[in-house]
Amino acid sequence: MNFELSDAGQAVVRRVESFFTNEMLPKHREWVHAVKSDGVHPPFIRELQQKARKQGLWNLALPGLLESEPGTRLSNFEYAHVAEILGRLPWGSLVMNCQAPDVPNMVMMQALVTPQQRQRWLTPLLCGEAQSAFGMTEPATSSSDASNIATSIDRDGDEWVINGHKWYINGVASPYCKFIIVVGVTEPGNARTGRHSMVVVPMNTPGVRVVRDLTYMGHYDHVAPFGEVILENVRVPAENLLGERGQGFKGAQIRLGIARVHHCMRLIGMAEVLVAQMMARAAERKTFGRSLIDYDTVQRWIAEARIDIDMHRLFVQRAAWLLDHGSPTDTWKIISQIKVATPRMMQIVSDRAAQLFGAMGGCEDTLIPYAWAYSRLLRIGDGPDEVHLRQVFRNEPAAPWTIADCPYISTPNFG
Amino acid sequence: MNFELSDAGQAVVRRVESFFTNEMLPKHREWVHAVKSDGVHPPFIRELQQKARKQGLWNLALPGLLESEPGTRLSNFEYAHVAEILGRLPWGSLVMNCQAPDVPNMVMMQALVTPQQRQRWLTPLLCGEAQSAFGMTEPATSSSDASNIATSIDRDGDEWVINGHKWYINGVASPYCKFIIVVGVTEPGNARTGRHSMVVVPMNTPGVRVVRDLTYMGHYDHVAPFGEVILENVRVPAENLLGERGQGFKGAQIRLGIARVHHCMRLIGMAEVLVAQMMARAAERKTFGRSLIDYDTVQRWIAEARIDIDMHRLFVQRAAWLLDHGSPTDTWKIISQIKVATPRMMQIVSDRAAQLFGAMGGCEDTLIPYAWAYSRLLRIGDGPDEVHLRQVFRNEPAAPWTIADCPYISTPNFG
Amino acid sequence: MNFELSDAGQAVVRRVESFFTNEMLPKHREWVHAVKSDGVHPPFIRELQQKARKQGLWNLALPGLLESEPGTRLSNFEYAHVAEILGRLPWGSLVMNCQAPDVPNMVMMQALVTPQQRQRWLTPLLCGEAQSAFGMTEPATSSSDASNIATSIDRDGDEWVINGHKWYINGVASPYCKFIIVVGVTEPGNARTGRHSMVVVPMNTPGVRVVRDLTYMGHYDHVAPFGEVILENVRVPAENLLGERGQGFKGAQIRLGIARVHHCMRLIGMAEVLVAQMMARAAERKTFGRSLIDYDTVQRWIAEARIDIDMHRLFVQRAAWLLDHGSPTDTWKIISQIKVATPRMMQIVSDRAAQLFGAMGGCEDTLIPYAWAYSRLLRIGDGPDEVHLRQVFRNEPAAPWTIADCPYISTPNFG
Amino acid sequence: MNFELSDAGQAVVRRVESFFTNEMLPKHREWVHAVKSDGVHPPFIRELQQKARKQGLWNLALPGLLESEPGTRLSNFEYAHVAEILGRLPWGSLVMNCQAPDVPNMVMMQALVTPQQRQRWLTPLLCGEAQSAFGMTEPATSSSDASNIATSIDRDGDEWVINGHKWYINGVASPYCKFIIVVGVTEPGNARTGRHSMVVVPMNTPGVRVVRDLTYMGHYDHVAPFGEVILENVRVPAENLLGERGQGFKGAQIRLGIARVHHCMRLIGMAEVLVAQMMARAAERKTFGRSLIDYDTVQRWIAEARIDIDMHRLFVQRAAWLLDHGSPTDTWKIISQIKVATPRMMQIVSDRAAQLFGAMGGCEDTLIPYAWAYSRLLRIGDGPDEVHLRQVFRNEPAAPWTIADCPYISTPNFG
Repeated sequence: MNFELSDAGQAVVRRVESFFTNEMLPKHREWVHAVKSDGVHPPFIRELQQKARKQGLWNLALPGLLESEPGTRLSNFEYAHVAEILGRLPWGSLVMNCQAPDVPNMVMMQALVTPQQRQRWLTPLLCGEAQSAFGMTEPATSSSDASNIATSIDRDGDEWVINGHKWYINGVASPYCKFIIVVGVTEPGNARTGRHSMVVVPMNTPGVRVVRDLTYMGHYDHVAPFGEVILENVRVPAENLLGERGQGFKGAQIRLGIARVHHCMRLIGMAEVLVAQMMARAAERKTFGRSLIDYDTVQRWIAEARIDIDMHRLFVQRAAWLLDHGSPTDTWKIISQIKVATPRMMQIVSDRAAQLFGAMGGCEDTLIPYAWAYSRLLRIGDGPDEVHLRQVFRNEPAAPWTIADCPYISTPNFG
Repeated sequence: MNFELSDAGQAVVRRVESFFTNEMLPKHREWVHAVKSDGVHPPFIRELQQKARKQGLWNLALPGLLESEPGTRLSNFEYAHVAEILGRLPWGSLVMNCQAPDVPNMVMMQALVTPQQRQRWLTPLLCGEAQSAFGMTEPATSSSDASNIATSIDRDGDEWVINGHKWYINGVASPYCKFIIVVGVTEPGNARTGRHSMVVVPMNTPGVRVVRDLTYMGHYDHVAPFGEVILENVRVPAENLLGERGQGFKGAQIRLGIARVHHCMRLIGMAEVLVAQMMARAAERKTFGRSLIDYDTVQRWIAEARIDIDMHRLFVQRAAWLLDHGSPTDTWKIISQIKVATPRMMQIVSDRAAQLFGAMGGCEDTLIPYAWAYSRLLRIGDGPDEVHLRQVFRNEPAAPWTIADCPYISTPNFG
Repeated sequence: MNFELSDAGQAVVRRVESFFTNEMLPKHREWVHAVKSDGVHPPFIRELQQKARKQGLWNLALPGLLESEPGTRLSNFEYAHVAEILGRLPWGSLVMNCQAPDVPNMVMMQALVTPQQRQRWLTPLLCGEAQSAFGMTEPATSSSDASNIATSIDRDGDEWVINGHKWYINGVASPYCKFIIVVGVTEPGNARTGRHSMVVVPMNTPGVRVVRDLTYMGHYDHVAPFGEVILENVRVPAENLLGERGQGFKGAQIRLGIARVHHCMRLIGMAEVLVAQMMARAAERKTFGRSLIDYDTVQRWIAEARIDIDMHRLFVQRAAWLLDHGSPTDTWKIISQIKVATPRMMQIVSDRAAQLFGAMGGCEDTLIPYAWAYSRLLRIGDGPDEVHLRQVFRNEPAAPWTIADCPYISTPNFG
Repeated sequence: MNFELSDAGQAVVRRVESFFTNEMLPKHREWVHAVKSDGVHPPFIRELQQKARKQGLWNLALPGLLESEPGTRLSNFEYAHVAEILGRLPWGSLVMNCQAPDVPNMVMMQALVTPQQRQRWLTPLLCGEAQSAFGMTEPATSSSDASNIATSIDRDGDEWVINGHKWYINGVASPYCKFIIVVGVTEPGNARTGRHSMVVVPMNTPGVRVVRDLTYMGHYDHVAPFGEVILENVRVPAENLLGERGQGFKGAQIRLGIARVHHCMRLIGMAEVLVAQMMARAAERKTFGRSLIDYDTVQRWIAEARIDIDMHRLFVQRAAWLLDHGSPTDTWKIISQIKVATPRMMQIVSDRAAQLFGAMGGCEDTLIPYAWAYSRLLRIGDGPDEVHLRQVFRNEPAAPWTIADCPYISTPNFG
């Protein structure tokens, strides 16, 4: 068991670290100011993207990146180290085209697109010229059991006609979003998991209406803002079908696993930022004649965070490694495991950071409210804890003995 | 031990309940719409205030209400029942002039004002014609040990000259706010708790600058929005001193106890709303072929909430009763106790409600993000948990024996 | 709402407190020594019982005590104060004939006995001349759903013939135990809750075999030791039926409610002992140059315990008051609530006491292992948490609105 | 990062697994019966030891095992896999001479012994012909700060004269224990950590008195039973000094790190046993018409345990790997981390197992009370959580910026 990256992997990670430190982090305050005042990214984002891409720091999250596609291919395990760095800032991943929901969409499209679809939809994403959304969640149905999804996608001649109501669609409220991959029912007569298909719906199609932006727990995500979308008699050409009819579920799985792992990777980086902030704050503030850092409660909070972060990082890296090398069963299981564990850990870390920072801990000047809302969101997003726990349980083998037979149990025989 | 209200108390509570149900609750959606689109209260608030006042449902939170002052005097214990009802809505207390920070300010002013101050500052509050703020917290000092507060209030002839930087000042960002009661140092040479005084600073005084509105954990409080205030060479007449010089601390205590208890009372009401919403949601949603309400995890969440709410209500009502009848020592102790316990409970209830509601649980259409942020805030606001725990600890009597003497410990003597 | 006892109640409580302090507590070490070396109570227990009874400090836990029965009748609310005092010691209740399982058995028998049964079985209990057991739990069935209980009680002429296997029967392993009230199936054809009856089985009946003593989590209860009992063709006369045929369930309920409340009352007293011990220990021990009491973690543990104890005491006293005055519905509900909440609280308090005490915290010289095991037991005994949570849930009223109608939810209409 | 064992390592692990399954596990009930009735190991333990040793399954926990010493040398990482298997049974490690406190003692002695000491004391341990104890903890001093230890070891001519009072000395109450390595003060004038030395004290030395056996939380450890020892004018020859004078602290560290890691390894194995038992029990028991395994609360308990076990195993294996390959700083840090995290995890798993098993969960027929007490003990033993958290905190680097400078914080400038 060694946890070391290959030399090549290390080199990339070092370059990302350096790029992050020198080019990105110093611009964070400017980014905050810009999105608050203008609601859109400042122009330097585009410049940084170009600079990063030129250095090969591009599309690092796509282990299936083709030679012909721009960027540097890393394994999932290697990317874990990159994602942690980029995860320190809300907009970090964007600079190297590693942001959700585009990366999961790209991964899924790499697997499913026709040549025409590749050129029309995938290539612009790979080049950072477009963003995208994935339209699954609906207000009227419980999407934690995705077979509930009710949006209809009906065939009419050479077109699909889509009617539905989606919300909490990540990125759809962004001005950069060019299309939604809509999940809906095309085969109502099929069994539960064979009823859905996916179609690509350009944002500018008539009948697509983003009726409002949405926050989650008060947080507005400037990188991939949530939106609520009403689809009314939306018509797209037949060729916009992504994958096969009735295979929407299976297709969506491709993106869901990777999406979950990437979120967890980023949470680790964010947690590190909070701990460093706690260290700084605790050293500076005094109450009752003592620095906060001299209170053992504060020391405990920091130590607990350190334990939790290191343990969860290992677990997340293991998941990434299994994505590269493991069986599907092992991989799905550990993805559910980290998906439950990591956001919960982060919620505790951010709650304690908030407490340590006093009023400032709730202020958006810090990244604490963001970290808190993001980790809270991930206990619901991409499947609620309860669904993942259920999955983990269902993987647990039955015991090889009954209680009466169990050799570990020593009930006497009273004859 | 009976927990019953007097008949008179019951009658008021029934009238508040009825007013709430018939006049207020049906207007909640309209209120949400109005504050979102206009940022200010809709006109019906003023109308409801007048209607409520006409019915005597006014100033119910002031146990020291004088005959000459408008409204109905209730005991703290009686008001606990009212506060729970009004606490169901973010804007509930406002209708009966029971909102923070005005009520704590009024209570403090009732104790400290000169006749002129009464007329100029207190009476408009009592009549709902003005709102107010209390300027304690500062970004640069740890206010959990309030002796740190650094704003200077210097005497210059017949005036006070104030320089300081305050933030997270509840209500100061409201257009209805007419004045801040500023806490600052007037006697720098005194001992730690005798250095501060309070002065009333009208919002329109030159040098008072609300530099920005503030959210806490993403939540913007439309009733008493937080603001950041810079006070630069602000001059107010000598007569604006509230209470005596160097007694600012002691004076502030008057308002702080009551403020904490009222917050806890309201949290109970809010918690009840969330539980009812959970019951409704769980009955409606299905996953994997079963209603959410048939999952025992969901049943457990609701049952745990029921236990916690009932237990904390009792504790809060007991605190209210001690405010009416108890010794100061007992009262301060239980206030610290409920101040730690109740927001923590509410944070758990709102976290579970969020989980049960899925994406909708983070949406401001529900009151969940509000409840979550409000309860989180109260773990910091009016003294962080850690300060209150310290207070509770310091009230704990030393043990009457050493471990060696302790009759409960039976260490053998091995000769 | 006043929490004050009547003057008469206060007088009794004061006398119990004084008797406890002067007569009982000083003998605790002797008791520990005696039960460890001899396995039975030291003779002074009998002497203390006589002394207490002479002073009227006897049968204080029986609100239905008749004029003709020995002792002093207290209300449940009054007894709550007494139980807390006696609960400070494992053997405390025994001295005033307030111990489980005898008290719940007496309460049930007071309701159900025939005159002959009263004289033969109940009177000796009331006089402290016998102890008893209640035989419900079985190893082979899940007794949390008591309708599972499988012991057969068959009628054969003028006798009942009993066959079954019981375990974790409180008190049955005591040499003072004179009889078991056995719950078993007499009416196998009836509906789930109408199948069981209760019969009194003297310990010395042929076929009654206590096959072993049992500990729970390593703790051996010297006052009412758990035993495992095999009943093989045990024959008792028809007149030993307690209550009516098929009413065993209903009858058992009489004792179960009171049993749960009494346990909770005692836990409060035990928790107070642990907090005082923590205060003593923390003041004496030093690590890294500081007294333990100067670590804020330790202060927090004590403060948290103080908050929890005071809050749960109130809740338990409220339950006692409802037992005296409330409706059955309210009473059963609050009993389930305190039954879940109080042992959990106590488990945390004892865990922290254990941590503070270091190695000594696990040593039976202290009462910490006892407190820990007892509180852990109560999360299972008299119904596991899960069953009580289920009960609490089932009492929760359905919401008066659907989510769509809910006036607290402000989903916009997007037309 | 691969977590795979070398082929050689895998082969050993497979042989241990097979030996455990075929030779050991089937004898567990017999072992329980024997220690309960006789208080000593049944003869088959000796036979199994011989058989294991013959197969090379001996001294697997000693990465510094010499060619000349019996057994098979494994790395710490390899041993982690073995320890998990043996940890499934309380007596598992004993069979392969991998038990505490002997292994940590052997590791320390390997580093410190003189040739004579090797022959006299170490070789019998390596051969399983003796057991040993390590005498550090004292009732009168807080050993979490070990510089408090007060036992005196005075030089008198060619002898050491030892006076002190030790308790909770693991293994000292075993009839197989041949000597204690006593830690005491030889250089009272030195600085805090240079005052102590270690001497080997044979159990049969006059003045050594084991005054009683001790349980921890009701659990009696039959493999290495705790004892309380009074040392009164105990004289041993000068040559019994282990290591150098004043280096007792430094010497003890050698054994403490390894001891902690081994405990954590075993806990993982024990946790697996409990989960399998939970699966078995849940499948068999019914309440309210449903199998326990169909309650989602039960499924959640099992899933949470699975997540926690897998994550902690990885963390513990990583610690083992760092013991083999890491820097001392990294190694000490992760040891403190797993030492805090793993017992806490196990305490939760065993608490839930206890709840699922009902009354049986507290019965010593299962291994639940053992697992519970053992994990609870480890939150105190070998350094309480608080000391390890303090260590972890002290390793945390200071933040590279102040809050004002922090590039992650975007406080506006209000000029």
